[in-house]
Amino acid sequence: MKIIFKSIGTIYTPYKSKENMPIQPKGAKDVKGKIILDKNLEKGLDDLIGFSHIILIYYFDKSFGFNLKTKPFLDETKRGVFSTRAPKRPNNIGLSVVELIDINENILFVKNVDMLDETPLLDIKPYIPKFDVYSTKRNGWINQKIIDLNTIKSDNRFS
Amino acid sequence: MKIIFKSIGTIYTPYKSKENMPIQPKGAKDVKGKIILDKNLEKGLDDLIGFSHIILIYYFDKSFGFNLKTKPFLDETKRGVFSTRAPKRPNNIGLSVVELIDINENILFVKNVDMLDETPLLDIKPYIPKFDVYSTKRNGWINQKIIDLNTIKSDNRFS
Repeated sequence: MKIIFKSIGTIYTPYKSKENMPIQPKGAKDVKGKIILDKNLEKGLDDLIGFSHIILIYYFDKSFGFNLKTKPFLDETKRGVFSTRAPKRPNNIGLSVVELIDINENILFVKNVDMLDETPLLDIKPYIPKFDVYSTKRNGWINQKIIDLNTIKSDNRFS
Repeated sequence: MKIIFKSIGTIYTPYKSKENMPIQPKGAKDVKGKIILDKNLEKGLDDLIGFSHIILIYYFDKSFGFNLKTKPFLDETKRGVFSTRAPKRPNNIGLSVVELIDINENILFVKNVDMLDETPLLDIKPYIPKFDVYSTKRNGWINQKIIDLNTIKSDNRFS
């Protein structure tokens, strides 16, 4: 079953290359980005500024192909791709929660961006702790990792 | 820019109709569902059972069209569609965090499902609190709502 989406806008960030990028928004603290939404969707942004955090769903348009077993950035062991957040996936869909600073017409000013410059945007949803925060019981392979996301950057493994 | 994805599997739930459904996984406590992943993607599930919660990204295949201003289930005021989690959106992409109970070959047994039966699946990612939990500063229109998600069900507004 083929599913066709359209880009609804573009995410602009300081990252022009896949290497040396932050791993996750938590590793991109205060990094500023900008989203230009299609002008004809501008009314859909009403009320959004009331939320400090928004979920961006986007397309890893610079990722081609995928492997079912892959080494994620935080590991040297091959893992099943669905147990990772690797950009090369059966459907190259990215998910990041960013901080929403301001909206001016169809332009959103955001912080904590961790995606490549000029990434095509698919959807924006409000991040709502009542919906989106879960207490987990198991945290898989990542549980054993000592993670300081502010010091870890991407390498060329997905290039 | 057109983006083409393929369904990677199907989510089975008890919900055959858009009305009287739970609002969000938090309103679907213990409701059991099953995901049948494409058999040729089965190796991609390795290591996933280590995580108690997984993010499902899926296609609202029974939602057609959208309005830029829409009344979400939890409100009687029209809101910008991007400030809501309404299923009718410019790209009809759904996002739910469900609890992962078991995996048997290419079949995932999950809990807290809030989507329609036979929903096409686009992606699975591990839910990782270190990545996915944020402290918000503003919670928009939803902040004023007294929400007991266990008592609220969907109505026909998006039918």
